[in-house]
Amino acid sequence: MSHVVKKRKLDKTRQDRLYFDSYSDVTIHEEMIADHVRTSTYRTAILRNSESIRGKVVLDVGAGTGVLSVFCAQAGAKKVYAVEACSIAEQAAKIVRHNKLEDRIEVIRGTVETAELPEKVEVIVSEWMGYALLHESMLNSVLYARDKWLKPGGLILPSKAELFIAPVSDPVLEDRLHFWYTVKEQYGVDMSCMSDFARRCLMNSDITVNAVTVEDVLSHPARFAELDLYAVTAEELRSVGGHFRCESFGSAAVNAFCVYFTVTFPCPDKPQAQALVLSTSPFKAETHWKQAVLYLDAPVDVVQDTPVTGTVRMYPSKESARHICIHVDYTIGEQKRQSKTFSIPD
Amino acid sequence: MSHVVKKRKLDKTRQDRLYFDSYSDVTIHEEMIADHVRTSTYRTAILRNSESIRGKVVLDVGAGTGVLSVFCAQAGAKKVYAVEACSIAEQAAKIVRHNKLEDRIEVIRGTVETAELPEKVEVIVSEWMGYALLHESMLNSVLYARDKWLKPGGLILPSKAELFIAPVSDPVLEDRLHFWYTVKEQYGVDMSCMSDFARRCLMNSDITVNAVTVEDVLSHPARFAELDLYAVTAEELRSVGGHFRCESFGSAAVNAFCVYFTVTFPCPDKPQAQALVLSTSPFKAETHWKQAVLYLDAPVDVVQDTPVTGTVRMYPSKESARHICIHVDYTIGEQKRQSKTFSIPD
Repeated sequence: MSHVVKKRKLDKTRQDRLYFDSYSDVTIHEEMIADHVRTSTYRTAILRNSESIRGKVVLDVGAGTGVLSVFCAQAGAKKVYAVEACSIAEQAAKIVRHNKLEDRIEVIRGTVETAELPEKVEVIVSEWMGYALLHESMLNSVLYARDKWLKPGGLILPSKAELFIAPVSDPVLEDRLHFWYTVKEQYGVDMSCMSDFARRCLMNSDITVNAVTVEDVLSHPARFAELDLYAVTAEELRSVGGHFRCESFGSAAVNAFCVYFTVTFPCPDKPQAQALVLSTSPFKAETHWKQAVLYLDAPVDVVQDTPVTGTVRMYPSKESARHICIHVDYTIGEQKRQSKTFSIPD
Repeated sequence: MSHVVKKRKLDKTRQDRLYFDSYSDVTIHEEMIADHVRTSTYRTAILRNSESIRGKVVLDVGAGTGVLSVFCAQAGAKKVYAVEACSIAEQAAKIVRHNKLEDRIEVIRGTVETAELPEKVEVIVSEWMGYALLHESMLNSVLYARDKWLKPGGLILPSKAELFIAPVSDPVLEDRLHFWYTVKEQYGVDMSCMSDFARRCLMNSDITVNAVTVEDVLSHPARFAELDLYAVTAEELRSVGGHFRCESFGSAAVNAFCVYFTVTFPCPDKPQAQALVLSTSPFKAETHWKQAVLYLDAPVDVVQDTPVTGTVRMYPSKESARHICIHVDYTIGEQKRQSKTFSIPD
């Protein structure tokens, strides 16, 4: 009963402190380690690259509990610097000792922007992806580490990120809008006039993190952006996006767009092998990232092959640089062009 | 990934604004109306009291969408003043017109402390109960309305509240603590040393709102407080509590206490009829209030008939008068007396 909305402008230091505080609780780390797609894909990617890692120096940016650093040590790294700004670093240090790797993994408590490493590194590994890929903008720290600490020709894991969009329907939303029509039958009070208020509340400008069911995806997803982690700059991250074009599978009501990402792990040792992809697609096994759902202002009906086109632009919020905004310009069928800007609520 | 913790002291006006803001979204109203135990018990209680309501003037304190006001009009009230401080009052006014009751229900936007009614009332109806009964301390407003607007001999619905406590086990918590022992088998990294950190994070001082399963309740619940809404004062609400004594059903690990409430609706017209009780007990159908779960610092083993005794005291938080704190002094079996203070996180 206390969904209290709090919005205010934070100074950057306080923002950073709150951001790093949020990783001190066990829940998020449990969720990340227990996310089998995430943890096993990183593990496989690191072990598959053992030829590039063996005997080398690795930097783990935002190491958390240090699990990726341990994988790198297991892959033969000579030294791993596990840089972690929040107090979970203490647990990482314990885990390193517990696994008898303290001679090869050094946990450094601090931000990668301030950490002083005694040497440059051949490999950077990082699990930096936030909701809708860029929420929390931790990728900036990886790029900073790349420019400052990665030796020329070094390896970045993962090395590529891609963003996708698709129109979706949301039956739960439809049920919730319909709910107000059912009150009269149940309690003798006609509350159907609440439906419009409900629509305005529910089809709002929040980026909703939700698992989209396969059947609710209304077209093949379209890729609208690609980031090459060897090349992309912090400046370019200030606006990420591109065009998309989808065609609906069949007749349905479009309620929302769903945005998701994949990241790809190269395997330079094995040019023949297929690249390893960590996908958060609704067509793949669910991850803790689920999908980012962006509700339209009202449902729009489509039929088979109705074109859904537009552009997406993602950029950091003015109020908090770690918060992502997503602006979508879109046209559905014969409708006139519309646009809506979404952000992740506090 | 953004479980950002925010704590700060709010001035009272801002607190109130945030409190009332939180009821402007549709979700909480949907949850309350869809809570069948809540809505149908209120409806039955109001209709059963139609002899006391017919031709009378009613005040609905914190009317929300106005559903209780409509029930009162249906029970024959001559006039209902539906006082609601937040902007949902606009929806309530719409619903009143939609049900053609605008001549009998007057929606007044404002707090009951500032609202000016043109007359005194014979009946006060209110759904004021928060998590753990007293969170949000809306009962103070009902008492204020009683003292200012209720005629002598008037009816209050509900008229009594009772608080209960029982020791419980939480298998989900146990699974989560055990999780860190399973990582080695799955990913080859021994993370068992995280279990202690996990226990400190999860068995914390937050009042957790959670549905407790019947099988996890380890004794008959004990009543530790009763409030007579005709008599209790705002001063008395500054500290509500009492002693409890439970005896465990069998061998188990106590992880937590569960606190819940019931409220009782009198039926003065029908002294023979059993009083109507709205119960949030884990032994009854689930409500949106679920139960308030208070984790111990560590599990404690009990066997059949192990006594679990102590005192509970509930009081408003110093930082925010609408936030409830629960202090529990307890002794389990031969253990020495322990105490812990809980609060609802922001």
